[in-house]
Amino acid sequence: MRTGVWLIGARGSVAVTSMVGALAVRASLAAPLGCVTELPELRSAAVPTLGDLVFGGHDMSTVGLVKKARDLAASGVLPGALVEAVAAELDMIEVEVLPAPGGGVPCEGSPDGRVQADTAARIVSDLRAFRDRHDLARIVVVNVSSTEPVATPHPAHADLAALRAALDLPGAVLPASALYAYAALSAGCPFVDFTPSTGARLPALAELAAEARLPHAGSDGKTGETLLKSVLAPMFALRHLRVTSWSGINLLGGGDGATLADPAANAAKTASKHRVLGETLGYQPEGHTRIDHVPELGDFKTAWDLVTFQGFLGTAMRMEFTWHGCDSALAAPLVLDLARLTAAAHAAGVVGPVPELAFFFKDPIGDVPHGLAEQWTLLVEFVRGLSDATA
Amino acid sequence: MRTGVWLIGARGSVAVTSMVGALAVRASLAAPLGCVTELPELRSAAVPTLGDLVFGGHDMSTVGLVKKARDLAASGVLPGALVEAVAAELDMIEVEVLPAPGGGVPCEGSPDGRVQADTAARIVSDLRAFRDRHDLARIVVVNVSSTEPVATPHPAHADLAALRAALDLPGAVLPASALYAYAALSAGCPFVDFTPSTGARLPALAELAAEARLPHAGSDGKTGETLLKSVLAPMFALRHLRVTSWSGINLLGGGDGATLADPAANAAKTASKHRVLGETLGYQPEGHTRIDHVPELGDFKTAWDLVTFQGFLGTAMRMEFTWHGCDSALAAPLVLDLARLTAAAHAAGVVGPVPELAFFFKDPIGDVPHGLAEQWTLLVEFVRGLSDATA
Amino acid sequence: MRTGVWLIGARGSVAVTSMVGALAVRASLAAPLGCVTELPELRSAAVPTLGDLVFGGHDMSTVGLVKKARDLAASGVLPGALVEAVAAELDMIEVEVLPAPGGGVPCEGSPDGRVQADTAARIVSDLRAFRDRHDLARIVVVNVSSTEPVATPHPAHADLAALRAALDLPGAVLPASALYAYAALSAGCPFVDFTPSTGARLPALAELAAEARLPHAGSDGKTGETLLKSVLAPMFALRHLRVTSWSGINLLGGGDGATLADPAANAAKTASKHRVLGETLGYQPEGHTRIDHVPELGDFKTAWDLVTFQGFLGTAMRMEFTWHGCDSALAAPLVLDLARLTAAAHAAGVVGPVPELAFFFKDPIGDVPHGLAEQWTLLVEFVRGLSDATA
Amino acid sequence: MRTGVWLIGARGSVAVTSMVGALAVRASLAAPLGCVTELPELRSAAVPTLGDLVFGGHDMSTVGLVKKARDLAASGVLPGALVEAVAAELDMIEVEVLPAPGGGVPCEGSPDGRVQADTAARIVSDLRAFRDRHDLARIVVVNVSSTEPVATPHPAHADLAALRAALDLPGAVLPASALYAYAALSAGCPFVDFTPSTGARLPALAELAAEARLPHAGSDGKTGETLLKSVLAPMFALRHLRVTSWSGINLLGGGDGATLADPAANAAKTASKHRVLGETLGYQPEGHTRIDHVPELGDFKTAWDLVTFQGFLGTAMRMEFTWHGCDSALAAPLVLDLARLTAAAHAAGVVGPVPELAFFFKDPIGDVPHGLAEQWTLLVEFVRGLSDATA
Ligand SMILES: NC(=O)c1ccc[n+]([C@@H]2O[C@H](COP(=O)([O-])OP(=O)(O)OC[C@H]3O[C@@H](n4cnc5c(N)ncnc54)[C@H](O)[C@@H]3O)[C@@H](O)[C@H]2O)c1
Ligand SMILES: NC(=O)c1ccc[n+]([C@@H]2O[C@H](COP(=O)([O-])OP(=O)(O)OC[C@H]3O[C@@H](n4cnc5c(N)ncnc54)[C@H](O)[C@@H]3O)[C@@H](O)[C@H]2O)c1
Ligand SMILES: NC(=O)c1ccc[n+]([C@@H]2O[C@H](COP(=O)([O-])OP(=O)(O)OC[C@H]3O[C@@H](n4cnc5c(N)ncnc54)[C@H](O)[C@@H]3O)[C@@H](O)[C@H]2O)c1
Ligand SMILES: NC(=O)c1ccc[n+]([C@@H]2O[C@H](COP(=O)([O-])OP(=O)(O)OC[C@H]3O[C@@H](n4cnc5c(N)ncnc54)[C@H](O)[C@@H]3O)[C@@H](O)[C@H]2O)c1
Ligand code: NA
Ligand code: NA
Repeated sequence: MRTGVWLIGARGSVAVTSMVGALAVRASLAAPLGCVTELPELRSAAVPTLGDLVFGGHDMSTVGLVKKARDLAASGVLPGALVEAVAAELDMIEVEVLPAPGGGVPCEGSPDGRVQADTAARIVSDLRAFRDRHDLARIVVVNVSSTEPVATPHPAHADLAALRAALDLPGAVLPASALYAYAALSAGCPFVDFTPSTGARLPALAELAAEARLPHAGSDGKTGETLLKSVLAPMFALRHLRVTSWSGINLLGGGDGATLADPAANAAKTASKHRVLGETLGYQPEGHTRIDHVPELGDFKTAWDLVTFQGFLGTAMRMEFTWHGCDSALAAPLVLDLARLTAAAHAAGVVGPVPELAFFFKDPIGDVPHGLAEQWTLLVEFVRGLSDATA
Repeated sequence: MRTGVWLIGARGSVAVTSMVGALAVRASLAAPLGCVTELPELRSAAVPTLGDLVFGGHDMSTVGLVKKARDLAASGVLPGALVEAVAAELDMIEVEVLPAPGGGVPCEGSPDGRVQADTAARIVSDLRAFRDRHDLARIVVVNVSSTEPVATPHPAHADLAALRAALDLPGAVLPASALYAYAALSAGCPFVDFTPSTGARLPALAELAAEARLPHAGSDGKTGETLLKSVLAPMFALRHLRVTSWSGINLLGGGDGATLADPAANAAKTASKHRVLGETLGYQPEGHTRIDHVPELGDFKTAWDLVTFQGFLGTAMRMEFTWHGCDSALAAPLVLDLARLTAAAHAAGVVGPVPELAFFFKDPIGDVPHGLAEQWTLLVEFVRGLSDATA
Repeated sequence: MRTGVWLIGARGSVAVTSMVGALAVRASLAAPLGCVTELPELRSAAVPTLGDLVFGGHDMSTVGLVKKARDLAASGVLPGALVEAVAAELDMIEVEVLPAPGGGVPCEGSPDGRVQADTAARIVSDLRAFRDRHDLARIVVVNVSSTEPVATPHPAHADLAALRAALDLPGAVLPASALYAYAALSAGCPFVDFTPSTGARLPALAELAAEARLPHAGSDGKTGETLLKSVLAPMFALRHLRVTSWSGINLLGGGDGATLADPAANAAKTASKHRVLGETLGYQPEGHTRIDHVPELGDFKTAWDLVTFQGFLGTAMRMEFTWHGCDSALAAPLVLDLARLTAAAHAAGVVGPVPELAFFFKDPIGDVPHGLAEQWTLLVEFVRGLSDATA
Repeated sequence: MRTGVWLIGARGSVAVTSMVGALAVRASLAAPLGCVTELPELRSAAVPTLGDLVFGGHDMSTVGLVKKARDLAASGVLPGALVEAVAAELDMIEVEVLPAPGGGVPCEGSPDGRVQADTAARIVSDLRAFRDRHDLARIVVVNVSSTEPVATPHPAHADLAALRAALDLPGAVLPASALYAYAALSAGCPFVDFTPSTGARLPALAELAAEARLPHAGSDGKTGETLLKSVLAPMFALRHLRVTSWSGINLLGGGDGATLADPAANAAKTASKHRVLGETLGYQPEGHTRIDHVPELGDFKTAWDLVTFQGFLGTAMRMEFTWHGCDSALAAPLVLDLARLTAAAHAAGVVGPVPELAFFFKDPIGDVPHGLAEQWTLLVEFVRGLSDATA
């Protein structure tokens, strides 16, 4: 079951770490740490193996994959020896990473008279050619490109027919992430949004996914502070402790940090970080989550949170934590997991948003539990269902 | 269903906080924060209400309950106004708190010629008189007395008949906590050990519980660092992250801190704190948990833990947390929960150790899950079963 | 040497804590913790005693001093028993706290036709009446009112004659803090700015202070994160360690927090927090200081800072700290110290800005050392000089 | 002024980092970060340059210097490229690192009939040969070997004549560190103890240093938690804040951590860590400092401290910090500084203990200030004095 993984933002840190890791793990050069599909509870014949994956993608950067991997090694994200061990194989993927159609900024519309429908058509034809070249059973398109600013609403977002009409006119109807989602679904490919950008989260695109009978998943990979919230907030709830405030700051260094330093993009990300508290606790505690860009931290992130809470008879207590994580190392194995699980879902005929993948996301689709343990139970049952379907 | 709650260590911080809180909550002076039996998922007609509870106990301290409650208010554990509001009612419990039989140190054996069987008989007769005085359906005996040093093994611990024989001879066969458990079970009362002491954890006492058809539960209330471990360790496991070390220090001020400053008692407590990691992760990470006594901290405790872990391709990461909790405020509502749930279990005919109460304990009885979420699921099902049994 | 202390913002947390504390300490109900003028190295006959101080002030709030003190006790800033012990005496100060002239918002100018010169004249006459009523040797005016937004520049700020002319015209020339400074200096009173507002920091006011032969001091009491920076930054510098980033967040609850939630006021405060790093290290590390308002924290503040640094051969290291302080308790004794020291400076004939008081300020006047130890040395020598002058 | 630096423990982490760093910095491959003698305030013609230093030493390990340096690079202490750049030069030092006389355990006395005087003689002759081989102006002997357990007292420690007599008899009179100090001083070499071991801290050895007219310095390099205490404790003192408790834990990975896991060695180290608090504050706050060995942490150390304190009117506050340092990277530049400064002191005729070097030590000799800023002032004046002496 040869499965394509088409990465939007294929030259970024998360994408390159995912590719290096897939190559290293399948060559038995590294253990599959961080990959949850490799845990006994999720192992399933219905899920393609790491060896089944074939990589490609779009990016507007022109930095070579091996160069980027070496940069990541220099900054401590990847072991240098591992990068060298897979460098030749990584270099073979180079030809499959194409320039981002529409001049790298597809959302800007048509500087040269072309309309967004043209850009979408280019993406579709790139995907079809990739499928044919490698004789793939299917391609999962995963967005790991830079976080966009919050998108401008447009009436055509509400309806597929209106959207198709609007894309044929000049002007930017869809932000880049949604145009990629539109093209992916149009090409018959499941779509996963690992970023907080719009992606497939528009009524018109939900309609398209249903029409095309495709699964899609998102949004925003859960790798740090929100992961901790998803176990700590349930702890307070189950112990009937009242969380009075939850404040936090995220210090980010990498490319993503630079993007998020832009307050508009920042807003998209911090909003998705808050949902878990309100939904788990049943009320919204005081406090905010801040994001700051500190280039010095490189691909590492330091998050600090302070939680104040009340116990028996109102006694005031507090906890604080510091999380010092390597974002790309946390995200990359989840990208591989999501590609594999979404491919399996497609093979099993799953259509529409997949709430059972909530385990992976900060801002999961649908009315799902926000506690990690319940999300895990949902995921285990989902994978078991896929196995039964294929068995 | 009038239910007795007999507290061993009734003049201690946890006991007095439990009594003040029960009085305040049932008079609607405070919300039942911290009481998990008051959460919607656990509310059940099978469980006695706070209003059903009647308090008594043993202690070798002679400090009055109201005096102790005011001391706790002065040190910030209890709101002063609440203490005054329930002072008269609290004072009425005074007559039900009896001197610890055997001169307060029942484990010391028989200075005046008496044997441990005599001390046990005194405890039994105190319990029976309490039951009769208040016309109680049953009494749950809860050990909240000072943590004992690790007990000296004795051959009679292995067998009930041997134990009964040995208790009739001079000398200390059982440590105090186990003598209380022996007496409670002999008097037909379920026994809960909220401390890390021996309690009912001896084969001879398991035999006695089975013979007397009584439930018992323990050990060691889970209120701080171990509570956090029970949600954080599963998080690392579910994400396939390898915990390489987990180190911690607990700074304790109160009476319990003074006891635990004694390295022998300390050993009992830190051992129970470690189990959760090995059992959740499937391997034992490096690192230790230390306990230090810092009187200045009063009834508050500060715990700090450092966790180092490896993710994708071995990347090293870390998290640390500081927990600043009020131990008595965290423990007291759980003592009430345990008394109520164990009474319901007894009413429903549950016999022997109750692993479904693992949610409450650092060192739960039996082969149980150590993740808090799974323990919660077990507990919810258990309470549902009790309701069905009584319905 | 009876000395007036005139507090702008006399009904605020810092002001009321200062008054309660002065009354309690001089009645020997509390030790003078936090008061540096009570340390052996600074004790001097040239400095008025706590018993010499007479309090008064302006505020636009109408909450009674005793009521405010009880609120502070309820929120854990002041011991309740102490408040009651000095309540009667505190209540006697009530008549000396006058409504803020100009309707409480003197910077707004002249809604009813009056000009800022009129408001200044009212302040001057209030100060003179206070001096006469109590037969004071002098009055030190201390600004402890809410932080203002960054002030709008005005050409008349540059020159005293121009300022006097402009104040006679309608419109707001000076922000409130500077109008108070103008009036204080005009009335012959030394002025201390404990806030980050403009205060006396305008060329025209420097001219006025020189003309009136008065000392003045500021700005912004150093009580938390900046205090720590003033010892930690020198540590890195003296050890030749290169600070690569210094990021922080301040979570504030009290009235001050609410004001600072306003981004404009926030800007004034974070700017003054940064100066110490650049001036101590000789370069500006990466990173920012954020301020967030979390009402739940009340008068307590939690600050968290992360410092990354490089050592020998570039090795990357880090430290982080959490500071959990009670802002009013930290600020109030310094307000008393500043009033006493500035009075002594005035008595000794000191004129103009007093850089030797840099020890107390986040953003000290003049070209002063930013390390706390050097500031201490400067302060000790300054007080010694005052003693010699008066001896 | 060619200056020998003879390292006891020359194959350990600190020693090898010192040598690699000295080679790299003098070849302009790295900036002299961490070296305080390279700060403008301490630059002096009286102090030998890094280029003047010639390295040698004793160790009982047989691991090659280049191999050790590569291990340090692998664990992130040294940049790999730098190690390779100086590998050839480092390898040339190999011949100057001699086996520790007395079979590596000189304190054990005379298994083969030899007495400690023989071992000392061997050390002396090794030092003399080194001096002659390289035509050195002088040699500074620096102890950077493993921390010893607290030494057994012996009557001969009190008096030089008695000591000389005792060393001629079988049996262990001196622990290794003191035997090295004895030999160094006997050979006319200044001695620096960078460890908490006994070293020259015996009356008999003070007598010897005076007789031989040699300077000596110690003890125990101040690189982490104690460095922070030396700036934070003065901050609390200068602000008249009362420190009520100071508790800490040190998690150490490296070779030193393994040694210190031994409670006896641990005792020596934690004792020296406490002195700074009592001497700076004038009273001893509650709390302890723990040391734990966590091999996983490698050459990095994580220290966490909690400080509780009282401010105005007794208000309780707290701070905590986490220090994540690379011990060898912090220690090595100080070893170079100490060698250079002690050599300069010797050249300038300084005799006996050098309290002016307190800046570098956890447990400095003599009645010295414990605040870092005062120690710095002392050091600056000392170096200025040396310059004057030589000018
Ligand atoms: N790392 C994590 O833990 C984590 C967690 C959740 C979400 N994410 C999200 O993953 C995304 C990638 O993160 P990263 O650290 O790899 O960032 P990165 O900056 O290293 O990489 C992003 C890549 O996207 C490319 N790109 C930007 N716009 C594009 C477009 N329109 N078309 C094609 N390519 C485009 C960029 O050229 C760059 O190569 C971000 O949106 C981030 O928010 C990351
Ligand atoms: N507070 C928590 O979060 C928590 C959590 C888990 C377990 N525990 C355990 O709960 C117990 C009580 O804690 P605490 O803080 O109330 O301690 P405490 O010291 O305030 O009270 C203990 C009481 O037990 C009494 N006592 C001692 N030996 C006795 C005996 N043989 N017979 C009768 N009474 C005796 C003492 O006189 C004292 O009044 C401790 O064992 C502690 O380890 C507490
Ligand atoms: N607490 C600290 O640690 C600390 C440190 C440095 C600076 N400061 C500064 O001290 C000031 C006071 O802090 P606080 O916590 O007492 O605040 P607060 O809000 O409790 O008190 C401020 C008082 O000023 C009054 N006020 C506002 N505008 C006024 C005006 N124009 N004229 C007269 N009164 C006016 C308000 O009515 C209020 O009573 C703030 O500016 C704060 O930034 C405090
Ligand atoms: N790194 C720091 O921040 C720091 C700070 C203060 C003190 N120190 C002290 O410096 C010393 C060295 O630390 P390290 O990390 O390099 O340790 P390490 O274990 O890496 O090296 C110690 C070396 O000493 C050698 N040795 C042991 N006994 C010896 C003997 N009798 N004669 C000769 N050699 C002997 C060992 O073989 C080893 O090579 C320790 O005592 C440590 O406590 C280190
Ligand atoms: Na921390
Ligand atoms: Na912390």
